[in-house]
Amino acid sequence: MKNGSPVTLGGSADFSLSPTLRQLSIDLFDRLRETSLDGVGVSRETYGASETAAFELIEHYARDFDLDVEWDSARNLIVRLPGTDPSQASVATGSHLDSVPEGGNFDGAAGVVAGLAALIDARERGTPLRSMQLYALRGEESAWFGGPCYFGSRALFGALKPEDFASPHRNGRKTLEDSMRESGADIDLLKRGDAILDPTRLACWFELHIEQGPVLIAREKPVGLVTGIRGNVRHRHVYCHGEAAHSGAVPRWLRHDAVLAMSDLLVRIDEHWRVLLEWGEDLVVTAGVVETNPAEHAVSRVPGEVTFALEYRSQDPKTLESFGALVQSECDQIGAKRGVQFDLGPQSFTESATMSPPLIGLLESICATHDVAHEVMPSGAGHDSSVFANAGVPSAMVFVRNDKGSHNPHEAMDFEDFFLATQILSEAMWHAANEQEDYRS
Amino acid sequence: MKNGSPVTLGGSADFSLSPTLRQLSIDLFDRLRETSLDGVGVSRETYGASETAAFELIEHYARDFDLDVEWDSARNLIVRLPGTDPSQASVATGSHLDSVPEGGNFDGAAGVVAGLAALIDARERGTPLRSMQLYALRGEESAWFGGPCYFGSRALFGALKPEDFASPHRNGRKTLEDSMRESGADIDLLKRGDAILDPTRLACWFELHIEQGPVLIAREKPVGLVTGIRGNVRHRHVYCHGEAAHSGAVPRWLRHDAVLAMSDLLVRIDEHWRVLLEWGEDLVVTAGVVETNPAEHAVSRVPGEVTFALEYRSQDPKTLESFGALVQSECDQIGAKRGVQFDLGPQSFTESATMSPPLIGLLESICATHDVAHEVMPSGAGHDSSVFANAGVPSAMVFVRNDKGSHNPHEAMDFEDFFLATQILSEAMWHAANEQEDYRS
Repeated sequence: MKNGSPVTLGGSADFSLSPTLRQLSIDLFDRLRETSLDGVGVSRETYGASETAAFELIEHYARDFDLDVEWDSARNLIVRLPGTDPSQASVATGSHLDSVPEGGNFDGAAGVVAGLAALIDARERGTPLRSMQLYALRGEESAWFGGPCYFGSRALFGALKPEDFASPHRNGRKTLEDSMRESGADIDLLKRGDAILDPTRLACWFELHIEQGPVLIAREKPVGLVTGIRGNVRHRHVYCHGEAAHSGAVPRWLRHDAVLAMSDLLVRIDEHWRVLLEWGEDLVVTAGVVETNPAEHAVSRVPGEVTFALEYRSQDPKTLESFGALVQSECDQIGAKRGVQFDLGPQSFTESATMSPPLIGLLESICATHDVAHEVMPSGAGHDSSVFANAGVPSAMVFVRNDKGSHNPHEAMDFEDFFLATQILSEAMWHAANEQEDYRS
Repeated sequence: MKNGSPVTLGGSADFSLSPTLRQLSIDLFDRLRETSLDGVGVSRETYGASETAAFELIEHYARDFDLDVEWDSARNLIVRLPGTDPSQASVATGSHLDSVPEGGNFDGAAGVVAGLAALIDARERGTPLRSMQLYALRGEESAWFGGPCYFGSRALFGALKPEDFASPHRNGRKTLEDSMRESGADIDLLKRGDAILDPTRLACWFELHIEQGPVLIAREKPVGLVTGIRGNVRHRHVYCHGEAAHSGAVPRWLRHDAVLAMSDLLVRIDEHWRVLLEWGEDLVVTAGVVETNPAEHAVSRVPGEVTFALEYRSQDPKTLESFGALVQSECDQIGAKRGVQFDLGPQSFTESATMSPPLIGLLESICATHDVAHEVMPSGAGHDSSVFANAGVPSAMVFVRNDKGSHNPHEAMDFEDFFLATQILSEAMWHAANEQEDYRS
């Protein structure tokens, strides 16, 4: 605290974004919203015209502030403030600009706006040792091409797979490859798997993002510092096969009720989850989709089958593995007890990512210095940062308190919280850009 | 046993339907099947042409055997063997002739064929004291007019309600009233609620029916004697309202997961059910239809709502009432614990019925005399007999062992079991028709 002003929940009064950058952020969010209104919320389609319009808006603002601008082969946009020593690895930040259909204006865009503000703020401070970069990334959302995501960040590290290019658009009329080509991406280069970016050329990576959960609201803290990004295991169609029967005429001892077996399984899983949390594990478990078979179910019929989705997430790959074994063991036990069979079906796996402890430490010390109430917490949602972290770039994330979740037009981020988080980002980047510190060690 | 032949599982060798009546039964089942084949199974539509064709077939056979025949105002068919004392109440049997769409040939029809055989058998024995009657009943199945059922038997006692007449046919193009009118029923009389039959004019009622559950197969017994018909309480749409949320970003302590709450409820209900059975209560419980909301569910979304059906049945109305209170109490408790609301929605109630202990005793003594292995058991499915019993007619039912359930073309009744059960029916009716015994006492 420079002037001894009273401590507030949001940090010391003078630790705050400049009026210019506040106004710039508000204007930029307004312009982004205007370019992408869809009648319900905003739609910035992965590698679509509405996404490109948002990119061009950022480019326009960056040029206005005399920052260098470059489009890469995947049509990501890189905004650059050159440092004094080009031999040094750069300090980078960024996030994505696409949104889900009828989504909110802040999911993704907040990190790009904050990054632009941080670079402008840095230029005001002088010239850094290391170059500072903002990556506006393409296609982070899975909503447009049926599941796969992180196209822009994965392209940086040559990690797009043949099946990514073939992913069908939700309208069924084109593939990701078609959309990328229309956007001007160099498909041949990307298909060869050539990396666009050498990860060792980044000293560290920061991403600011709205929290997509309710933890910061519940904890009454404006900012979160992320310890890791949960990986997940998904079984989209777990099938429980019992035996359909007359609901009145079949006594309990002759039943093989699929719904009761599923309920038994989910309650046991829920109880294991509770105990594992007390044990200190990081875990969330969800059965989000449940359906008996409409072709044969009835109020007066013992259900012979039920399908349900099962997803579990953890920052710790070992937890995911052990939990998977526990689920299978419960399926076997309940199956034997109730005379039903569980078939977990195909399983998809998304890697978890660990954020860099030295970078978390840097962010914590900034918060401590400026009395910013913050929560150290996992990210349950996936982010481009996991791609950077798993490519070997020391990474960290700053969450901004946000009400009403994300992926909907009602997401509610208070600008004061955003300004505070942006100031933390700016401070951290300026620090990292002027130190020789190797966050890889 | 008249000749001391060795006892078999199915009863003593000479306790058996005559070769003539065996052949008659087989022929009649064949003819019924022929008149109602639908390509998959048989369809005898409630108050439809295919049902009427089956009635006319029974009428034709009854006339061939010189039995009196009459159609009542609801177009039920009554076949009569007059007794020597017209002042005495009659002994009656019967069942329904309609089937579900693509149903089996024995559900319902077995009781009509058996009743006809019993009357012919009685005429061979001589002239009974009381008149003996067979009721071939209309419209027992709920499949054709969207839920309501027992139209023929309820009409006998003036118990059809205005909403019954307005019930829409499953094809959506007519009502029950239209179909009844086409079949020649006296709608005006039925709408006035005039009884066709004075229940005190029936000394007792018997119904033979295939078992619709697997108990007799599991117990390896050819015949069941029914203690009562389970009533039921149905909640077609129980709604559990929680809170939808991001499946990764929301920790366990901030969730209000509707599917886990439902699972918790169903497992508790299942456990109560188990304990109540050990306590000696009669109960079956089913949640046959479950669905998360397709408009908002997703693999990566904590389910904010789920709907499910809940049905429970018991012979004992007090058990139904107490179990309902227990369910509500569990809903409240789980709702408070998990921060969700359960709404049980509208409830429908079908009365249970108690079979007459003296008549069950009569049937048991016949089985004992002839060494017929039998199970004394509840009926979980509804039957016209519940209408007779609840109108005050002492009633009893004989179940015939049947594999693969009912309401499907795969129902599998062994003719030997049918002949045995028919012989029991015939014996019981002949006994009752020649005794002064008042089964009402």
